[in-house]
Amino acid sequence: MSQNKKNINVENVLKTPVEDQKVELVERKGIGHPDTIADGLAETVSQALSQEYLNRYGEVMHHNTDETQIAAGSSCPKIGGGEVIKPIYILLVGRATTSIGDEQFPAEKIALKAARKYLKEHFNHLDTEGDIIIDSKLGQSSAELREVFERDSIPKSNDTSFGVGYAPFSETEKLVYQTERYLYNLRNEIPAIGEDIKVMGLRNNETISLTIAQATVSSELDDIDHYKNILNEIKNNVHDMAVKKTEIPIEIDINKADNIEKGNIYQTVTGTSAEMGDDGSVGRGNRSNGLITPNRPMSIEATSGKNPVSHIGKIYNILSTEIANQISNEVDEIREVYVRLLSQIGQPINEPKCVSVQTIPHKGENIKQIQPTIESIVEDKLDNINKISKKVINGEIKTF
Amino acid sequence: MSQNKKNINVENVLKTPVEDQKVELVERKGIGHPDTIADGLAETVSQALSQEYLNRYGEVMHHNTDETQIAAGSSCPKIGGGEVIKPIYILLVGRATTSIGDEQFPAEKIALKAARKYLKEHFNHLDTEGDIIIDSKLGQSSAELREVFERDSIPKSNDTSFGVGYAPFSETEKLVYQTERYLYNLRNEIPAIGEDIKVMGLRNNETISLTIAQATVSSELDDIDHYKNILNEIKNNVHDMAVKKTEIPIEIDINKADNIEKGNIYQTVTGTSAEMGDDGSVGRGNRSNGLITPNRPMSIEATSGKNPVSHIGKIYNILSTEIANQISNEVDEIREVYVRLLSQIGQPINEPKCVSVQTIPHKGENIKQIQPTIESIVEDKLDNINKISKKVINGEIKTF
Amino acid sequence: MSQNKKNINVENVLKTPVEDQKVELVERKGIGHPDTIADGLAETVSQALSQEYLNRYGEVMHHNTDETQIAAGSSCPKIGGGEVIKPIYILLVGRATTSIGDEQFPAEKIALKAARKYLKEHFNHLDTEGDIIIDSKLGQSSAELREVFERDSIPKSNDTSFGVGYAPFSETEKLVYQTERYLYNLRNEIPAIGEDIKVMGLRNNETISLTIAQATVSSELDDIDHYKNILNEIKNNVHDMAVKKTEIPIEIDINKADNIEKGNIYQTVTGTSAEMGDDGSVGRGNRSNGLITPNRPMSIEATSGKNPVSHIGKIYNILSTEIANQISNEVDEIREVYVRLLSQIGQPINEPKCVSVQTIPHKGENIKQIQPTIESIVEDKLDNINKISKKVINGEIKTF
Amino acid sequence: MSQNKKNINVENVLKTPVEDQKVELVERKGIGHPDTIADGLAETVSQALSQEYLNRYGEVMHHNTDETQIAAGSSCPKIGGGEVIKPIYILLVGRATTSIGDEQFPAEKIALKAARKYLKEHFNHLDTEGDIIIDSKLGQSSAELREVFERDSIPKSNDTSFGVGYAPFSETEKLVYQTERYLYNLRNEIPAIGEDIKVMGLRNNETISLTIAQATVSSELDDIDHYKNILNEIKNNVHDMAVKKTEIPIEIDINKADNIEKGNIYQTVTGTSAEMGDDGSVGRGNRSNGLITPNRPMSIEATSGKNPVSHIGKIYNILSTEIANQISNEVDEIREVYVRLLSQIGQPINEPKCVSVQTIPHKGENIKQIQPTIESIVEDKLDNINKISKKVINGEIKTF
Repeated sequence: MSQNKKNINVENVLKTPVEDQKVELVERKGIGHPDTIADGLAETVSQALSQEYLNRYGEVMHHNTDETQIAAGSSCPKIGGGEVIKPIYILLVGRATTSIGDEQFPAEKIALKAARKYLKEHFNHLDTEGDIIIDSKLGQSSAELREVFERDSIPKSNDTSFGVGYAPFSETEKLVYQTERYLYNLRNEIPAIGEDIKVMGLRNNETISLTIAQATVSSELDDIDHYKNILNEIKNNVHDMAVKKTEIPIEIDINKADNIEKGNIYQTVTGTSAEMGDDGSVGRGNRSNGLITPNRPMSIEATSGKNPVSHIGKIYNILSTEIANQISNEVDEIREVYVRLLSQIGQPINEPKCVSVQTIPHKGENIKQIQPTIESIVEDKLDNINKISKKVINGEIKTF
Repeated sequence: MSQNKKNINVENVLKTPVEDQKVELVERKGIGHPDTIADGLAETVSQALSQEYLNRYGEVMHHNTDETQIAAGSSCPKIGGGEVIKPIYILLVGRATTSIGDEQFPAEKIALKAARKYLKEHFNHLDTEGDIIIDSKLGQSSAELREVFERDSIPKSNDTSFGVGYAPFSETEKLVYQTERYLYNLRNEIPAIGEDIKVMGLRNNETISLTIAQATVSSELDDIDHYKNILNEIKNNVHDMAVKKTEIPIEIDINKADNIEKGNIYQTVTGTSAEMGDDGSVGRGNRSNGLITPNRPMSIEATSGKNPVSHIGKIYNILSTEIANQISNEVDEIREVYVRLLSQIGQPINEPKCVSVQTIPHKGENIKQIQPTIESIVEDKLDNINKISKKVINGEIKTF
Repeated sequence: MSQNKKNINVENVLKTPVEDQKVELVERKGIGHPDTIADGLAETVSQALSQEYLNRYGEVMHHNTDETQIAAGSSCPKIGGGEVIKPIYILLVGRATTSIGDEQFPAEKIALKAARKYLKEHFNHLDTEGDIIIDSKLGQSSAELREVFERDSIPKSNDTSFGVGYAPFSETEKLVYQTERYLYNLRNEIPAIGEDIKVMGLRNNETISLTIAQATVSSELDDIDHYKNILNEIKNNVHDMAVKKTEIPIEIDINKADNIEKGNIYQTVTGTSAEMGDDGSVGRGNRSNGLITPNRPMSIEATSGKNPVSHIGKIYNILSTEIANQISNEVDEIREVYVRLLSQIGQPINEPKCVSVQTIPHKGENIKQIQPTIESIVEDKLDNINKISKKVINGEIKTF
Repeated sequence: MSQNKKNINVENVLKTPVEDQKVELVERKGIGHPDTIADGLAETVSQALSQEYLNRYGEVMHHNTDETQIAAGSSCPKIGGGEVIKPIYILLVGRATTSIGDEQFPAEKIALKAARKYLKEHFNHLDTEGDIIIDSKLGQSSAELREVFERDSIPKSNDTSFGVGYAPFSETEKLVYQTERYLYNLRNEIPAIGEDIKVMGLRNNETISLTIAQATVSSELDDIDHYKNILNEIKNNVHDMAVKKTEIPIEIDINKADNIEKGNIYQTVTGTSAEMGDDGSVGRGNRSNGLITPNRPMSIEATSGKNPVSHIGKIYNILSTEIANQISNEVDEIREVYVRLLSQIGQPINEPKCVSVQTIPHKGENIKQIQPTIESIVEDKLDNINKISKKVINGEIKTF
């Protein structure tokens, strides 16, 4: 272990690497899952506000829009048609700076427009005029212009919060992540594929089982055989993709709760189960690396919708993952690396109270000699912490 | 490793026990933290519905009320007084069975009354007539009576979901948990102590730092010196409590963001920061064991408000913690134990797809011989899975 | 006709007095009618705000709370019991001054508390914890303190608006008004009488038909015979009251939409039909004199909830009725009098753009000689216009 | 007076015709006035539901959508630009049949789409994506299909309610009505003219004063002179139009509350004052003939949004106006005619409890001989009462 001015602890921990553990669980909730819709709306609203603050004032003003709540509607899907009976209710919650000196800033207007735009862009079968209600309870705050110009270039932590990250992804993690991404894109070829895709991966006894809950779009189904064919097609496609990426045997189950004889199939009008009974909210689904990984340390912090410049929980979660990735990429001796960052109220955000780097070396590697490399990666990343914000605002870094 | 009909995997993993790791982070958000208020409301509503379903139908009907959203108000605290300017808005979201055969069930009425009762019982300075708005968007569903009486005694999993648990608590974990519980009770002696208490514990370099954010109640403060004295009193009290429980040196910081010279202190009218800018929602704070522990595997599943009889995510999170606790208590050879349960759609909930028990023995212990004991604990707990539901409904098991 | 500095027009109009017309229609919606609940809440909120503004600043600040919206719930009344299934949703809409100089004013808190208090005081069977949701969308505005102290004692009209009044009440009008008041009080003796009472009076062919829709309270009913007996008792009581007040023959119908054989009776859980399907909003029911009178000129202006100091529509409606009453009381020669006041933007409210007094003398009376008396009554009332505000704030003048 | 099987009373009343009265007040709230927006939304939603019920079931199912509530936003208009800061919140309230036999009907979806469409069609500068929030609380009801097919062709009154109408319009009434219509259309030539136009007409001392509150659109204004020029242009245009229609001298005042020196002018971003402080709700503005006329008998019933087939208050208000118009057109002897219709619970709607026709003949006319003509007009209109519904559903009859 070493300690330095940036409070960096590097320690070699004894730990069975995840891929050597007997059981591994990984989950990803796709773009159309109600919790991920909430994440996506929260994040897109924050991005839109940030961009407009930058346009007008050259600076991202205080805001956090990380509390979108989705209350499910009700619907009546049926093969070849169907319709939403009760719209999905979406409540944007959070706060934003709405007055800067004498000027007023249209935070709710920007939020509503960004939210509608996001839904239009990410859903093929959702009628944003009739299938949803978007309401807003954004609290308002004000800022003095003078104050703004006197700010330091490096913001100060306003909370005691932490971030966690790790690298690299295990094969199961990669597979779960890519399966959802693959199916989401496949909907442009197979229009019956809805955006609500949940992938659960279990590696057990040297097999990876992928359990996929794939919402289908009822108006794009011809009949029950068509539905069955589509599931088969999906299964085959995913299998083909998967065997290229891993040598571990793969089992795939899709829509196991179906009862095809009784006609109970997983069909929706809009592509998302939010239309009929599944509520959603921010921070309840994927972590900022896109996965839910109970074999790994995770942060409970909701990163989506948080202020990308000053919210320390958001920045540290993203940064710790970036640090872990860079260490994993550059330091060959390391098999797994875990990074935790803890903030210190009132101190610049690039001076955390504690940086913990836990490494698991490949067998036989000498860890001492790589400590300086790791420390310099951490320092460099902290020195360039402002880049995180920019990438988040531009959408280059995903948070869910 | 062993495998049996309940799909139990017991494996000894190589892992530096948490207390041997250099850095440990633990957090607890107290009862008055906005996220925990959301958890508390979600869970109390589910309990009230469950009890009334049992009263009327002898069975807990389908419901999930795990999506309470709190949009912060605004307030104007000032020493010796202050008032809430804009009430806290609380939206109860979820769904419940409201028609059973020909009968109608007053789910929203029960939910509203339970929520108000909870707030009255848990907050000393919150005016439930004027400081809050409670709104509701509980979706409605219906059940056939016949269906109800034909059900099996063991429900079937309706989702692929998992739970994680571990035992025992580390010293830092115990301390963080007890600090909040201690302060929450202390408010009956020191009325200026609000219910919004956040405790962050960092063990680092053989010291435990407790960083406490303690909301005070402005009307119970005489002046700024009184405030300072109360913080000191709290600090001393917590210190006295702590040194009895651990030999590790303790550092305590309270309300570090204060700027006492400028009069910026952490005061509230109601005892919770939900009155002025901090939103909250379910599943964003403590895990079902009461803590946030990035050094430990955690489930992202929100347990509060979920159906205590049929929601597999809730039951498995609680059950895995119970299993871990019992193993930890009864098997002396084990230093740490981690339990994960994965459900299997359509199968009885006491027949999980996979039970993973990871053990870290005390040095030199032979793990093979204790496998049968562990397996029999797991089996016994699974056989008695229904007890979990009863305890949750009666409030004997906390979920936050 | 005469004209003077207060722009008073007195004219004798040719008009068949209402009591000489063949057909007369009069309606009153009782305290528990959804529209009247909305009126009552709007007005009680304005009173509470006005009183607190006076307490704190010695002056009633800008506000209008005249847009309460009631969305009906659903319920399941049954003889001897019943319950509300979906609560009544009440949205307080309007605006109020919430910042005065550096101080903040808790308008929404005051509004919520006043609304709850009003419902508790006016309803015997409504459970304000579970049967209703009160939400609020009060817009916020700010005032400069300096501005406040520089104001004239007589406010200026900020709108072009008018008020209308007349006197005296016809016998049918008196009877309709008193029937509702009588039944509302009778519920303290006969607890099955709900607060939702609608009385429609039709005078036609020398008979007055009173058609009463009287909500009953299901939990206070023993059986269907009890219900029938109560309706009979009400009928007899109203008849006894009525014959003392008029010599015109009376016919009374209660709950004509009942189908007693089929068990369809007008029963409610809470005493108001807002519990099951009848929405309500401000200004849709009684005019400020307590009646709906299509034989008379009426103002469409909603008076309840309007600012009692500066809202010219509210003040002129009340004032014109007061002027009409005083003329009717003091000038024996007059059989009916109609008063209209029209404001002039930017002018003091006691200097209307036009006061129109239309008189119908008793046969053979010489109207010329009474003009000076009428003008002096009008002038006196205008000179004392501030008294209206005080009486409204204290609840001495009803607006519905 | 005569009496017949349709309970028609025709009576000649003694009354100074409105145009012979010294003072006449008439008001019209234009399409963009918040109360009229509420009316328009309520009515368009009812039309859309009616049309879709007809499409699917050949019959208009039960619904009433007459309680739209508009809570004003806040905005920041400025010459040459400006923007909405807080969106206008629109709550659709009412109820509709959402299940018919086994089928579900998407009432809220239809309502939301119709509301958005209406706003897009009637406002040139309102951004329906960002300037408004449309929320919905439509209560749900169900119908049995069997029941539907067994219904009589003539619905029965389910309430005791009345309608009032009169004819012809006075010159002042015509002028007020046409002024708003004229300006609303003029906005296509002069884009700075907003849709929020309030016209108050006062005829007094042989002059008609038109007081116009004309919202302008800030982004269409070049500077303060441009604003002044536009007001002048409007004034001249209205004057030219008016002098063609009446010989009574006209005075026109526009935006009298302006303080041009201080830059306080009546400008808006969107064309409606709902963007900044003026709430609105159904039934608070124009009566079903498009005017507010305190010199005339009026109904307080809100007609917009009511069910066009079964809501007796709506149908009778429209029908009584149609009867009055036809009598006025066809019976030359009559100068003014007033019609009131009172329903009878449980009876077919074409058999009212009472039809009161009050006529004011031209001087010297013998009224007796025209009674049969009047009665036959009334009977014919009652016999064809179903045509009213059709015209309302198709938008051929306006209700505001």
